[in-house]
Amino acid sequence: MTSDKAKPPRLTSLAESLPASVPFVGPEAQERARGRAFVARIGANESVFGPSPKAISAMGAAAADVWKYGDPENHDLVSALAAHHSVSVDNIMVGEGIDGLLGYVVRLFVAPGDPVVTSDGAYPTFNYHVAGYGGVLHKVPYRQDREDPDALIARAREVGAKLIYFANPDNPMGSWHDAGAVSRMIDAVPDNCLLVLDEAYADFAPNGTIPGIDVACTNVIRMRTFSKAYGMAGARVGYAIGAARTVAAFNKIRNHFGMSRISQAGALAALEDQDWLANVIRKTAASRREVARIAHDNGLVPLPSATNFVAVDCGRDGVFANAVLDGLIDQGVFVRMPFSAPQNRCIRIGCGTPEDLEKLAAALPVALSRAR
Amino acid sequence: MTSDKAKPPRLTSLAESLPASVPFVGPEAQERARGRAFVARIGANESVFGPSPKAISAMGAAAADVWKYGDPENHDLVSALAAHHSVSVDNIMVGEGIDGLLGYVVRLFVAPGDPVVTSDGAYPTFNYHVAGYGGVLHKVPYRQDREDPDALIARAREVGAKLIYFANPDNPMGSWHDAGAVSRMIDAVPDNCLLVLDEAYADFAPNGTIPGIDVACTNVIRMRTFSKAYGMAGARVGYAIGAARTVAAFNKIRNHFGMSRISQAGALAALEDQDWLANVIRKTAASRREVARIAHDNGLVPLPSATNFVAVDCGRDGVFANAVLDGLIDQGVFVRMPFSAPQNRCIRIGCGTPEDLEKLAAALPVALSRAR
Repeated sequence: MTSDKAKPPRLTSLAESLPASVPFVGPEAQERARGRAFVARIGANESVFGPSPKAISAMGAAAADVWKYGDPENHDLVSALAAHHSVSVDNIMVGEGIDGLLGYVVRLFVAPGDPVVTSDGAYPTFNYHVAGYGGVLHKVPYRQDREDPDALIARAREVGAKLIYFANPDNPMGSWHDAGAVSRMIDAVPDNCLLVLDEAYADFAPNGTIPGIDVACTNVIRMRTFSKAYGMAGARVGYAIGAARTVAAFNKIRNHFGMSRISQAGALAALEDQDWLANVIRKTAASRREVARIAHDNGLVPLPSATNFVAVDCGRDGVFANAVLDGLIDQGVFVRMPFSAPQNRCIRIGCGTPEDLEKLAAALPVALSRAR
Repeated sequence: MTSDKAKPPRLTSLAESLPASVPFVGPEAQERARGRAFVARIGANESVFGPSPKAISAMGAAAADVWKYGDPENHDLVSALAAHHSVSVDNIMVGEGIDGLLGYVVRLFVAPGDPVVTSDGAYPTFNYHVAGYGGVLHKVPYRQDREDPDALIARAREVGAKLIYFANPDNPMGSWHDAGAVSRMIDAVPDNCLLVLDEAYADFAPNGTIPGIDVACTNVIRMRTFSKAYGMAGARVGYAIGAARTVAAFNKIRNHFGMSRISQAGALAALEDQDWLANVIRKTAASRREVARIAHDNGLVPLPSATNFVAVDCGRDGVFANAVLDGLIDQGVFVRMPFSAPQNRCIRIGCGTPEDLEKLAAALPVALSRAR
């Protein structure tokens, strides 16, 4: 029909400079490459225990109404979350997973060339967004397998950071700081800087890990999700808790009709079933102990975890850990590992069902023996 | 716990300059303001005929698996769409509705200050994204209630536009151009410019409206959706068809894990049920005739439509049409209207079930009488 007469369109210079990268390769892509399915899917920090049956039922019911757009204000879910956290609806912003919300935060606060501080080896999707908006990342090392609040704050002060990313509990190490340390960090955030406090794993953390919410503080925004303990990673529902002025700013740029109506209904039902959540947290803790036991039985060192996964120290370097990882994947056990040294001496094993962990227990000695 | 010691974070100057606007207020917000539900929801160009029962069933089944993230490559859906359109998988990008994809296209091609051309009164969400990335909008008027390809191209050439937005069929007027006119427009796109051809309503259009797909042409990207004829607005599934180089660029910036797993499953099942789609298209055409008849019976002029709604000329100015609209809404009939003159002499009435249209037929004379 048409032939190519005109010169092609030009990406912005920023877009042109970006690699066509993906922060993570999905397990489905690995399965397609392998030509067969994984026997245990414990690599993406998903909750194998699933969402509340009430949430599943609500999503099934909502599917029949999917001809309607979702409410762009997310009114019912925002109201329920505000009540749940004892804050105002003006302090809650629902979005397409924490990933989506991180993109919005970066877009709101980071212009090309602006400095941003994170930890070397922390969440790559945050880094992807910072690069995507032309920000300049400054990374500080982990300290004893934990993110280092003092170093993050010091670097932010030094470079004049617009944002600091800090996850508590942390991914990929599963480590955490107590609420007092986090509060002190919030208090120390420099002028004109926003602390992005990623609390995706908050539900799994021991008491005393998560500081109380103070929405009068404008220098922190906290990220929560239905993807982890609520077991709804595939539904893409995250939310931010923050000062009203920060929350309101999302409305300048967000995709107002971006939320799935089915996901809205599912998240609302999931939030209402706190008994299920408590049960998942108990099951997750038991599974975490079992992962640690399997690691230990194989001569490896499981690190303490406040999440739904365990970083397992394989005792040598990143090359060795990667060989162990490959051995597990080759046997159909989907796991991942940290990207940066020295954390990459570990592999990251998610909590699983008893069946998942049987597969892990069978595969790990073989993987280790091959790696050695 | 914490007190506000540091100066607050600063939005980028671009973000600071943006209003906290919403492209559309949702019907749920209107219902909350009214204190009661609408009796007919025919204002958002949704499909009251719903999705295929097979899609509903697939979504219900997928809800139980929602603990897993969706496949970030959207592999199965992309493959099916590529086969459906006889193109390569490299020519298809699935995203969170056309709204989400429009945001990505603007982000990829529009740097602050870059010119973009659209029609005065065309899709506001596109304009919202252009403003959100600092682009400068140039608008050309509709011509006889249709978008004006020649004027769009001429303006694009004049200002050196990075993007041209053109919807065929058009929203909010329901008008259309034939495939030959669209092909000529594609051929005339200036150098270094991308035509964003929004074909959200393509499925409803008469034969001869939609030009064949030529993925060798780098100057056009075509937007399709499961929100309209497929009846899945609430699932947020759109896709772009374009040259491989343009499609690949999305991977630089998109939210890779942004798609709901449930929506992926629903869209795939919906695509496979082309009989349902054909049935919806027939029902929609019948409903469109009925809306036109009701308008005509009330002394109004229904404009020809190639979509699932009818722009009804109320015969006076925008103030009068707005009064008619208010009268319908007050009686529980949710409709919308064009924003710009002279199109705003019309109200936009969506196709509905027979029950919806009974409500419309009862409410319209009252609304007209009050408006007069």
